[in-house]
Amino acid sequence: MNITIIGAGNVATHLALALKEAGHAINQVYSRTLKSASILAEKINALPINKVELLNNDADLYIFSISDNALPELVKQIDLKNMNVVHTAGSIPIDVFKGAENYGVFYPLQTFSKKRKLDFREIPLCIEANNEKFNEKLTLLAKDLSDSVWQINSEQRKQLHLSAVFACNFVNHLYSISKELIKDKQVGFDILKPLIKETALKVMELEPKHAQTGPAVRNDTESLQKHIDLLSSYPEIQEIYKLLSKDIYLKNK
Amino acid sequence: MNITIIGAGNVATHLALALKEAGHAINQVYSRTLKSASILAEKINALPINKVELLNNDADLYIFSISDNALPELVKQIDLKNMNVVHTAGSIPIDVFKGAENYGVFYPLQTFSKKRKLDFREIPLCIEANNEKFNEKLTLLAKDLSDSVWQINSEQRKQLHLSAVFACNFVNHLYSISKELIKDKQVGFDILKPLIKETALKVMELEPKHAQTGPAVRNDTESLQKHIDLLSSYPEIQEIYKLLSKDIYLKNK
Repeated sequence: MNITIIGAGNVATHLALALKEAGHAINQVYSRTLKSASILAEKINALPINKVELLNNDADLYIFSISDNALPELVKQIDLKNMNVVHTAGSIPIDVFKGAENYGVFYPLQTFSKKRKLDFREIPLCIEANNEKFNEKLTLLAKDLSDSVWQINSEQRKQLHLSAVFACNFVNHLYSISKELIKDKQVGFDILKPLIKETALKVMELEPKHAQTGPAVRNDTESLQKHIDLLSSYPEIQEIYKLLSKDIYLKNK
Repeated sequence: MNITIIGAGNVATHLALALKEAGHAINQVYSRTLKSASILAEKINALPINKVELLNNDADLYIFSISDNALPELVKQIDLKNMNVVHTAGSIPIDVFKGAENYGVFYPLQTFSKKRKLDFREIPLCIEANNEKFNEKLTLLAKDLSDSVWQINSEQRKQLHLSAVFACNFVNHLYSISKELIKDKQVGFDILKPLIKETALKVMELEPKHAQTGPAVRNDTESLQKHIDLLSSYPEIQEIYKLLSKDIYLKNK
């Protein structure tokens, strides 16, 4: 396929590289600044542009991979009528593209950082399209990149995105807190890494509910109170401790 | 070494198997019920007992690996004077053994389940002892089992245990919530697994703070409000969402 990428952030970069590697041609990369467009464009031998008027009109697919806030605004500036368009956003409904002939969603459910190299074949790709034929086309393209391709509608995707906030963003914040709590005791974060890894790997096999351990699920009120006392100089973390412990107890009793 | 194990739960089992594998002899396994003592004792060719009076008095080391609540009570029933004793609990101070000649702590910082086989060499072992010579002895034993041996005093260990509640128990509960949130939309938990794995693996390399993504850290108030609305039928989860989002924003702004 001949593909144009709109966006040059983390998702756009990882996706463009995977498409290139799978043998597709990326002809243009659009970004608000020519600098960021160029950084990505150089890696995949594409043309960087920073004006929507410069978008070619003969690509087989236009992939919008920009922030949720910017997407609806940018879409309005482009005449989509004869284009095949998708976006990669978790929480934007498919009908942001209403009016185009063929439109859809190509949502990779993963956390991307510039510094981490990922195996794209393991990344779940959530596909949605406004018609059967385009759906087939997108599904074939997705299978070119990943072994994990899913049909997910806008309603499901919205909820999945919310769910991912808990499984990823909030989990990462708990890692931050755990690091903060031992900092003052001259203990480095490294000591927690095997535990963090095993906690995640465990739920690849066991139900999270069956993997639950700790004082809250045992309703070990003595340990819970000791922890709450230890957190007296961290009022926000103390509140998080109380709320999560209460919820663990209630959901598992 | 000739070792006696007091306890037959997850930690006792994993530890006893690792000791056996490293060439140490386990002579007795004590548990409140003969049945649970036997299950472990059989695996390591030891004698199961369920009465403290039956404890031999010539082991080189007695490892107490029982619940935090039960430990102080059981210790009182045993004449420790001529024994070398350690416990494996995160939040019990070393001086629970006061009165013994040589005593200490041998705390493996990991989450253990009967069903998961772990590589013990990767498990951080936290060592503390009441004297230099016993500390050396415990450190040597720990290095027999693991490549990750740490000197951690009772004060540090207490805080480390609290920190582990965030990095493990609370993280696992967030996995439960993420699963619950997509259940009603006919989406299975499998789709979240690569994200869960990558979120954990990311902080093996990056600082958790630098790995933070999502609407809260961007202060994307529109997405935050949409998510809060989506959670209107889950009041407890909604409260967790608000509290964690607020804390992410405040700690990263």
